[in-house]
Amino acid sequence: MKNVLIVGIGTGNPEHITIQAVNALNRADVLFVPTKGEAKAQLADIRRDIVSRYVTRPQSRVVEFAVPVRQTAERSYHQSVDQWHAAIAEAYQRLLLEELKDAETGAFLVWGDPMLYDSTIRIIERVRALETVPFDYSVIPGITSIQALAASHRIPLNLVGKPVEITTGRRLAESFPEKTGTAVVMLDGEQAFMKIEDPDARIYWGAYLGTAQEIVMSGRLADVKDEILKTRAEARARHGWIMDIYLLQKGRDFEE
Amino acid sequence: MKNVLIVGIGTGNPEHITIQAVNALNRADVLFVPTKGEAKAQLADIRRDIVSRYVTRPQSRVVEFAVPVRQTAERSYHQSVDQWHAAIAEAYQRLLLEELKDAETGAFLVWGDPMLYDSTIRIIERVRALETVPFDYSVIPGITSIQALAASHRIPLNLVGKPVEITTGRRLAESFPEKTGTAVVMLDGEQAFMKIEDPDARIYWGAYLGTAQEIVMSGRLADVKDEILKTRAEARARHGWIMDIYLLQKGRDFEE
Repeated sequence: MKNVLIVGIGTGNPEHITIQAVNALNRADVLFVPTKGEAKAQLADIRRDIVSRYVTRPQSRVVEFAVPVRQTAERSYHQSVDQWHAAIAEAYQRLLLEELKDAETGAFLVWGDPMLYDSTIRIIERVRALETVPFDYSVIPGITSIQALAASHRIPLNLVGKPVEITTGRRLAESFPEKTGTAVVMLDGEQAFMKIEDPDARIYWGAYLGTAQEIVMSGRLADVKDEILKTRAEARARHGWIMDIYLLQKGRDFEE
Repeated sequence: MKNVLIVGIGTGNPEHITIQAVNALNRADVLFVPTKGEAKAQLADIRRDIVSRYVTRPQSRVVEFAVPVRQTAERSYHQSVDQWHAAIAEAYQRLLLEELKDAETGAFLVWGDPMLYDSTIRIIERVRALETVPFDYSVIPGITSIQALAASHRIPLNLVGKPVEITTGRRLAESFPEKTGTAVVMLDGEQAFMKIEDPDARIYWGAYLGTAQEIVMSGRLADVKDEILKTRAEARARHGWIMDIYLLQKGRDFEE
């Protein structure tokens, strides 16, 4: 039986990796490193940096592979994601068949934590369902960008005893501020915060969290949103890519 | 100026600590370890284990301190928490004044991640506001019990493109399943899942996550909730304490 480790590696700061993840990478015979094309070359570099810093097992092999690109034309969002996952599952199946010998262990290095807005677990389950290559797998958690955001801003995520919603840009308007007083927004391609008109909302924003390029900004949403939009656009143009998230909050601790 | 590090240490598995946290503990002159009385002696033991495993700096000092107990009689929830935080802030102030010399660094070891249902950041801000001891501070994230839960169950937290609410037992009924299809419940003293009557809800439960005593159970809520209640009560009686969390979910991936 082959063995797969799905290893969370944090979001850019190589020191965000856990001892458990370092040990997992050193148990692996093969390290699978996704390369995402030119724009996000820096992300592949961070993964390579992690491997070279922490992997001390001399005989392990690094296998880089291209992740299929999601096709969106003439498809619903769900169809698009479903087909994309099927294509990645085929790529993973090939890796497990061709790159991993019997009884060997392969590790997938996953940005952040595999449990949060990441589909590696789902895709590995799809590969298992194909029943072409028998394997077992485990999941190793990693620091998410939410945690990097809160640490850099030195803020608790939640108000005292209050809930927090983690959501996407597409869905923010359904949630904040009517349904929840605290929303963390990930995967926002449309800067949904620009549409929130609430004089009491505060924003804590961060981009390239954990990396040397990290930018954080915070303040009353109405005061800082234009500046965040401008900073974001400039940074994106300069780097050729951006990953950013933010926390929106309304209300105070010890307020009913 | 003195320096304070608020260091997330994970939730029981000493390998969940990050390289950043290990380095932070080794920068500290003083390690502040809360002791919580007999019932939770095991938690203090895990903190001591982390110090003895990872701290290699020979001259650092460990200072154990008692955390004040929250008084609930004749107070609202918010009054009770506010007064408790004030009492802890006084204890922290005394530690920074008496145990930390000028220009020294002290580290507080915090269960999980300081950003999530933990008040160390808030309390450190209260100590700063007292203006009796000048200091700066940084926050170092740690693996939360939510991440340990998802890793042990090998599940993504969110359905594809869907939001997740993190909430408390007291507030669960306001949220699941009407408002959100995925709720993570922390701080549940009343087993609020017993009151959810939904034939389609699934539960992923875990106790003592990350420790050798870890228990995980999952299934259709209606099928497994009585068994979880029984297992929880037995484990609590056997250990003298329990820490548990769970994920409730309704719906499927690729379902609108």
